[in-house]
Amino acid sequence: MLIGKVSGSLWATRKNEKLNGLKFLLVDIEEDETAGRVQTLVAADNAGAGFDDTVLVTTGSSARMALDAPDIPVDAVIVGIIDSVERAN
Amino acid sequence: MLIGKVSGSLWATRKNEKLNGLKFLLVDIEEDETAGRVQTLVAADNAGAGFDDTVLVTTGSSARMALDAPDIPVDAVIVGIIDSVERAN
Amino acid sequence: MLIGKVSGSLWATRKNEKLNGLKFLLVDIEEDETAGRVQTLVAADNAGAGFDDTVLVTTGSSARMALDAPDIPVDAVIVGIIDSVERAN
Amino acid sequence: MLIGKVSGSLWATRKNEKLNGLKFLLVDIEEDETAGRVQTLVAADNAGAGFDDTVLVTTGSSARMALDAPDIPVDAVIVGIIDSVERAN
Amino acid sequence: MLIGKVSGSLWATRKNEKLNGLKFLLVDIEEDETAGRVQTLVAADNAGAGFDDTVLVTTGSSARMALDAPDIPVDAVIVGIIDSVERAN
Repeated sequence: MLIGKVSGSLWATRKNEKLNGLKFLLVDIEEDETAGRVQTLVAADNAGAGFDDTVLVTTGSSARMALDAPDIPVDAVIVGIIDSVERAN
Repeated sequence: MLIGKVSGSLWATRKNEKLNGLKFLLVDIEEDETAGRVQTLVAADNAGAGFDDTVLVTTGSSARMALDAPDIPVDAVIVGIIDSVERAN
Repeated sequence: MLIGKVSGSLWATRKNEKLNGLKFLLVDIEEDETAGRVQTLVAADNAGAGFDDTVLVTTGSSARMALDAPDIPVDAVIVGIIDSVERAN
Repeated sequence: MLIGKVSGSLWATRKNEKLNGLKFLLVDIEEDETAGRVQTLVAADNAGAGFDDTVLVTTGSSARMALDAPDIPVDAVIVGIIDSVERAN
Repeated sequence: MLIGKVSGSLWATRKNEKLNGLKFLLVDIEEDETAGRVQTLVAADNAGAGFDDTVLVTTGSSARMALDAPDIPVDAVIVGIIDSVERAN
């Protein structure tokens, strides 16, 4: 999974009907939880995330396992909100 | 999912027969919705997209979930047309 | 899907038996259809491609959907031969 | 699979309920087992790993095969603890 | 698929039990069969590969299709030993 920060949202009225009801957030994926933004993904929210939350993002087919049905065409889902990261050194 | 802009189309007469009837568009994937082009993918259109539209692209096995049959050999599908992106800061 | 150009072939006598009968081609994946070579993949040919053809390559589990059986261990397949690419600007 | 070193852990109270009971570790993926950190992933631990362990990480849908149920939304799992790496040159 | 060269092996006594009996090799993936090392993966051997062999590596869920059971948590398998590569120009 990847660590990212929620940086925005997007609006799309014309979309695949299986996507109706999902909230799509912009997530700035961080290569390292101390680094800056390296890539922006759009992830469906499965954890009640909000702006500036640090989140855990699952990608690929595994992302679909977080949703109610396994045939929803999403490849990135926010599966958790990270409270803290402990780095050992 | 990735954000991209439709920049062209392609024509292929000799192709896997499961691809018949699909429209294939060039999508310039953007690392960030404010950045320039970083990579060009070919995506099957599932949202009625046109040139210059900003689109939402699902990749991998999840892309197939947007089509009528899950065994069509595509790995990128345009699943929505983005009306607006709100970035929080 | 990715756009690439067929640049060679390879020979492997010792291989997984499910791969027997497949033709494996080197494909120089192009980040952009106007750019030079960025990465070389080996793809199974499903479209009758030849040297210098510009081809459409499907990757991942979707690649297997182009073949006769979904359990063949390939992760990249040439699914079409591109006749022309139209870029809008 | 990728080689990485466990560098930390993370805490997330609000998360997808299928993730309950899993331990999530930060793993610094190494491009080369002699190189420094190149990317940090979050992986579910399936091997009893601890800080500073060098671990084997499986990603994508294959990661789910290491867990008790194949529908847990994780895309990276620590499947082994590496005792030693022998490089031929 | 990717072209790589076997550069070493690894030993892991504590690992997911489904991995028992597999041989894990270090493979230096080459972006181009004439280029130097660009990334090191760990791949399960399915072709009887040895040090310095140039090999064909299948990644992702397709890698599992090369093994006896499709639920073994590996994401990279050596599916063939490359005898020769012919590049057209």
